[in-house]
Amino acid sequence: MMSRLQKEKAIQFRQFHQGPPTLVLPNAWDAASAYLFERVGFRAIATTSSGVAAALGYADGQISRAMMLEVIERMTRVVECPVTADIEAGHENTVDEMLQTIRAVIMAGAVGINIEDSTHQAEGVLVDVSFQVELIKALKELALSMAIPFVVNARTDVYLLPTGDEADRFDQAVQRANAYRQAGADCLFVIGVRDADIIRKLLQAIKGPLNILATRTTPSIAELARLGVARVSFGSLMMRAVLGRLRHLCRELLEQETYISMSDGAMPEAEFRSLFTTPQRSVPRA
Amino acid sequence: MMSRLQKEKAIQFRQFHQGPPTLVLPNAWDAASAYLFERVGFRAIATTSSGVAAALGYADGQISRAMMLEVIERMTRVVECPVTADIEAGHENTVDEMLQTIRAVIMAGAVGINIEDSTHQAEGVLVDVSFQVELIKALKELALSMAIPFVVNARTDVYLLPTGDEADRFDQAVQRANAYRQAGADCLFVIGVRDADIIRKLLQAIKGPLNILATRTTPSIAELARLGVARVSFGSLMMRAVLGRLRHLCRELLEQETYISMSDGAMPEAEFRSLFTTPQRSVPRA
Repeated sequence: MMSRLQKEKAIQFRQFHQGPPTLVLPNAWDAASAYLFERVGFRAIATTSSGVAAALGYADGQISRAMMLEVIERMTRVVECPVTADIEAGHENTVDEMLQTIRAVIMAGAVGINIEDSTHQAEGVLVDVSFQVELIKALKELALSMAIPFVVNARTDVYLLPTGDEADRFDQAVQRANAYRQAGADCLFVIGVRDADIIRKLLQAIKGPLNILATRTTPSIAELARLGVARVSFGSLMMRAVLGRLRHLCRELLEQETYISMSDGAMPEAEFRSLFTTPQRSVPRA
Repeated sequence: MMSRLQKEKAIQFRQFHQGPPTLVLPNAWDAASAYLFERVGFRAIATTSSGVAAALGYADGQISRAMMLEVIERMTRVVECPVTADIEAGHENTVDEMLQTIRAVIMAGAVGINIEDSTHQAEGVLVDVSFQVELIKALKELALSMAIPFVVNARTDVYLLPTGDEADRFDQAVQRANAYRQAGADCLFVIGVRDADIIRKLLQAIKGPLNILATRTTPSIAELARLGVARVSFGSLMMRAVLGRLRHLCRELLEQETYISMSDGAMPEAEFRSLFTTPQRSVPRA
């Protein structure tokens, strides 16, 4: 990708966080899902690290850096909109190692990244705020040195971990989010919160754009927008929706020996065959 | 994969063509779909070349051999059942080049392959029967030399091409299928036929197991089984079903700002996270 174009995309992507409208970010796991998301009308696309790993046959956190970068490159090759990467930056790494990974992710065409503040061990543990603050500052310097102002979405996993009571969690999430914002994070992602009242209070206490993960019981986009949520993402939900549907189709096939749910609503073959054949998408055989 | 195990899988896969029951072969496009197909109860799995290419962001026929082999390896790594590969063996190649590709496909863990008898140009053209017969004979020698009796599914594209009238097509398809069978093909795939009467007549005229492609208007598996069809596959239909469903979910999200169809029937997160974590599936970080 040309650097000037990528810089423009990064700026555009940052502007999307200054809604309304709320930025609705679907999470892609391969080039086909990314391409479909752009075609159907989303303004930008995120990746899902667990979905990317699953599509390749691995558990979350088990794919190599090279495999992750390949998938990001395949997505940025086929879409024109901004792509932000959910890299699972394990905190067994040093800040320098993480910077190398994130530099490579931006080189692969992404204009945003997620970082997380808990370890990927079986029993997740929050990393020190100071480590995360140092990392975010280093990321802002990296963005400057690359001349690509990529968006840093700093996730706090306070609500994911089974520690502390509700009030403690809230205070801890707010404290972390504001520290990350102070260090330069562009958006704050408090994962694990679904309750409209807590979201409202988080919005009052956190001094920056807020990212909420949508789940079955999360308020609708319209309601999140009214509350003032800047960005909504889905994690693995869309891929899980597709896998659940695929299982449903398979069961009909195995149990009824018919293909009604498989055929109804399927993308027509002519359209499918045309997906990646437009001139600007085609490339020489590798 | 250990060669002895692969040999056993090839033998098992060949036996699946001596139904009843009719072999129902879902077509996977990535490791996740392959894994799900095995878990839901299919006895064997095929790949879809157009689906594999689309998942990577390419039109059918546009991915490199290395990319195709990587995907096959990822599938055979995560499933235990037989996998047969729909390689798009472009007939711009010589028999020797095709043998090299197919050897690599078997080395990647597949125990079956599809070969096609038309060129992949915009206006498809049938290749000479003699070329295809020579190829099939060479494939049987390759299977012997590798000591892996992989299954050769010889497809004839007579019904796909806009040439000749119906009666000519029937005769031509039968003539080609029987020539391929004579040369050693294990199964004959007459693609493009949906009519029960034509399928019945094909079964009477073709001296070997018959593969039919299921589409919206194809008779049910139960009816195909009654007719005597040995193998039913789906091409890109399952991936197109998934993409159509994904588009439907996205439209609800964009237009209604809700996630009901996305959440209802989604694979639960705990199950999703467990997919590739069983001991025999886990591998060291690459």
